[in-house]
Amino acid sequence: MSERARRGRGGGGAARRAERSAVSFETAKFIERNIPNFEVLTEEALQIIEHNAETVLEEIGVNFINNPGAIARWREAGADITGERVRIPRGLARKLCATAPSSFTQHARNPARNVEVGGNNLVLAPVYGPPFVRDAAGGRRYATMADFNKFVKLGYMSKWLHHSGGTVCEPTDLPVNKRHLDMLHAHMTLSDKPFMGSVTEPSRAQDSVDMCKILFGEDFVAQNTVMTSLININSPMVFDDVMMGALEVYAQNNQACIVSPFIVGGAMAPVSVAGTLTQVLAETLAGIAYSQLCKPGAPVIMGAFVTSIDMNSGAPTFGTPEAAHITYGAGQLARRLNLPYRSAGSFCGSKLPDAQAAYETANSLNMGLLSGVNFMLHACGWLEGGLVSSFEKFVMDADQLGVLHHLAKGIEMDENAQAMDAIREVGPGGHYLGCAHTQANFKSAFWKSDLLDYKPFETWEDEGARDTQALAALRVEKMLATYQQPDMDPSIREALDAFVAQKKLSEPDSFM
Amino acid sequence: MSERARRGRGGGGAARRAERSAVSFETAKFIERNIPNFEVLTEEALQIIEHNAETVLEEIGVNFINNPGAIARWREAGADITGERVRIPRGLARKLCATAPSSFTQHARNPARNVEVGGNNLVLAPVYGPPFVRDAAGGRRYATMADFNKFVKLGYMSKWLHHSGGTVCEPTDLPVNKRHLDMLHAHMTLSDKPFMGSVTEPSRAQDSVDMCKILFGEDFVAQNTVMTSLININSPMVFDDVMMGALEVYAQNNQACIVSPFIVGGAMAPVSVAGTLTQVLAETLAGIAYSQLCKPGAPVIMGAFVTSIDMNSGAPTFGTPEAAHITYGAGQLARRLNLPYRSAGSFCGSKLPDAQAAYETANSLNMGLLSGVNFMLHACGWLEGGLVSSFEKFVMDADQLGVLHHLAKGIEMDENAQAMDAIREVGPGGHYLGCAHTQANFKSAFWKSDLLDYKPFETWEDEGARDTQALAALRVEKMLATYQQPDMDPSIREALDAFVAQKKLSEPDSFM
Repeated sequence: MSERARRGRGGGGAARRAERSAVSFETAKFIERNIPNFEVLTEEALQIIEHNAETVLEEIGVNFINNPGAIARWREAGADITGERVRIPRGLARKLCATAPSSFTQHARNPARNVEVGGNNLVLAPVYGPPFVRDAAGGRRYATMADFNKFVKLGYMSKWLHHSGGTVCEPTDLPVNKRHLDMLHAHMTLSDKPFMGSVTEPSRAQDSVDMCKILFGEDFVAQNTVMTSLININSPMVFDDVMMGALEVYAQNNQACIVSPFIVGGAMAPVSVAGTLTQVLAETLAGIAYSQLCKPGAPVIMGAFVTSIDMNSGAPTFGTPEAAHITYGAGQLARRLNLPYRSAGSFCGSKLPDAQAAYETANSLNMGLLSGVNFMLHACGWLEGGLVSSFEKFVMDADQLGVLHHLAKGIEMDENAQAMDAIREVGPGGHYLGCAHTQANFKSAFWKSDLLDYKPFETWEDEGARDTQALAALRVEKMLATYQQPDMDPSIREALDAFVAQKKLSEPDSFM
Repeated sequence: MSERARRGRGGGGAARRAERSAVSFETAKFIERNIPNFEVLTEEALQIIEHNAETVLEEIGVNFINNPGAIARWREAGADITGERVRIPRGLARKLCATAPSSFTQHARNPARNVEVGGNNLVLAPVYGPPFVRDAAGGRRYATMADFNKFVKLGYMSKWLHHSGGTVCEPTDLPVNKRHLDMLHAHMTLSDKPFMGSVTEPSRAQDSVDMCKILFGEDFVAQNTVMTSLININSPMVFDDVMMGALEVYAQNNQACIVSPFIVGGAMAPVSVAGTLTQVLAETLAGIAYSQLCKPGAPVIMGAFVTSIDMNSGAPTFGTPEAAHITYGAGQLARRLNLPYRSAGSFCGSKLPDAQAAYETANSLNMGLLSGVNFMLHACGWLEGGLVSSFEKFVMDADQLGVLHHLAKGIEMDENAQAMDAIREVGPGGHYLGCAHTQANFKSAFWKSDLLDYKPFETWEDEGARDTQALAALRVEKMLATYQQPDMDPSIREALDAFVAQKKLSEPDSFM
């Protein structure tokens, strides 16, 4: 739909020629950490949490609702079934999880954009899910497909972002039962980075797989992971049929899922960190075990989406020390399971991309890097507790992701880095700006923001005394004005267009 | 002066009665870390840096300028002297540093506010040095003594701030040769937290000691540390007579000094992290060794003030990954010397307390906590590369310091924290808000901001859609309106007043 509009505006032939001559933008490789993980739980604490999680699974159990197939799979695997309640004997879930790979490659249509999920790596993906968007000019409003396309373009052009994500905002102007087709089409055609599939119905997961077969080829999809999709657990300890139905489709097609509790601490989990970690581990063990019951070896990521709560207002809070503790702890638990780990993001509760938003986001991004996260969803653009995708915050956060890249490099210690010749050359009272070592190294020595203001006060004032949001609004405008669509085989493009068109005709629109 | 003005406004007797009935504000104890330090340098890397630093001291040496006494001390200690150049044989500086205590108590006039500097502790002190102030109402302007007093009051009332600091802003309306008297008087009378002494002339350091003798008693000062003062090294490797003169006064009086390189990387140190760490170590070894030559056992803190540089504009940059690497690495080096460590702060280059300021500050505060900093100067209020003390940012940062306190607590693992009863009580699909465990624990479970906005969007919009700066401006106003001066023995107060008055009469004003 939007695609047709775009072509209409640009003219079909002109658009195709532009595609063929499109420049490629610089994209950093996913982060390969050369720094240790920060670990806060002792061996004894880890054992207590692991023991307690098994107790939860064995004695309390979890619910797989409206899903007789799941109940049958669990019964066959040896679980104790009472109605929809699944009690999992101590050790069984962990044993089932052992067939999940410790890392996997998610392929992009541009192989240079493939990502390795697991090990010491960190893959960064944008915000997911908000029904609203905000920008400085237009304020806060319901998101549309036009907004969605803009976010995909910004993600494509963001150097430090490795992944195009999924529902970068919810295109509320499109029918609920068809918008996944446009979203996938946008990720596939406006970007060449890896992306996520739909999880709002098992049939939409199947549409996602089918569209990938067009994009990558049927054989390729059968043998490779080309999507990573987000499967939320309804904490505490409920696995609903919609999410599990999507998981079943993806697992059976060897496509990756993030199995992730969605927890506002104090509401969906105990008010304590240790209790929350216990529940997170129990839930992810059950969910990941289930993915392996559907298809042993299916790629999966252990997720933990955890915020704390403001006990006065009931509002979720972000960038808090308790969220950091849980994020650090869950990373340790994931590594002991030898599974890739998803957590953290550009989380904030603020309504504006202001100082509150940035404090909260920086707290969360830093803990995400140091806790050993392998896949960071929501790494840029999140605002107002996840209700809003912010255009300005998208580019502000995306710029800060460069800090994580450089931090993760660790400290070089070769002879050039030791710089003894420079210290000798300059000596007491000298300065290094002109010395040979500085001249040889300054270009790559320091991370450089593409957004933040380093100008002298007077220059900054003469230019309008702009704050970060104003600078970001200009950057958004400039990026969208210079966006060029990545090239695509016209026959693939036509097949994708035809698939979407045919699917849209196959059932009436629904806005429910 | 300003004090008299205040009394004049309030009326002498009324003010005295108010002082006697003043409420005490809640102040958190200094942070005692229950989390590990984050370490990025391997044992091999540490040994290389330590070896290279000794090479720098032995082969290149450092300059002690305009300071024949220092040259004589170094000669006697066994250094190789050429003019003002001091070359220190391998191992000598490290050996001299061994007499410095690994931790010390800095006493406050209210003993409940004493701080322990060293070990696993972290003491937080406010911004130091800016010639300008900024607030939302008045914009950016030269700082005055009235501004200074306001910052001391805000510091006194800030729960997570342990220390009143020193030059919280530079009172440019007072003579250069007398403003230290008013600054010390303000810290001593408007707050009861520990504070810093003057370092701008040896005689002013002596004034600081003399005023402390009035405040604490002569015997007490002879036996206890009651000031921690900031001695900057003129990097690279120059120790000037003014700073060293102040150090000499403080060391001989058993008062603590932070011996701290002041480095914009790429200008005052090599453009590489390893090279900068080498220079930082060489400089602090020389400076701390010198403090021990002046008085073995004098308390001292190993400092590292290091920023990177924007190679386009030459502006210092803050919250960068390179600064984080240096801060982590220098912490490891300080711990191997068994010395307290000073680094990090609310650093930012932004002109406004906006998102840039908050990203940069949060990056720096987080690395400060995790790198094992023992004394964090500039922990709140820093703006525009240290040119500006911001009223709004002071309370914004001071609020975020609560995050550090809660992070440092680590994760509780007792039976209550494990929360198994809560998980059993709630079960799959339930919620925790009303359960017994939540009711018993929610008040202390989560860090709570006193500033940030967690309200529903509609409420926030109805209240004026305020950003963080606007909320902070209100908080500054409210704090200053409810400030109550801590009680003080009137005879001490009169003696301090008399000392300041007499000193001011003893020489003409100088604004140079």
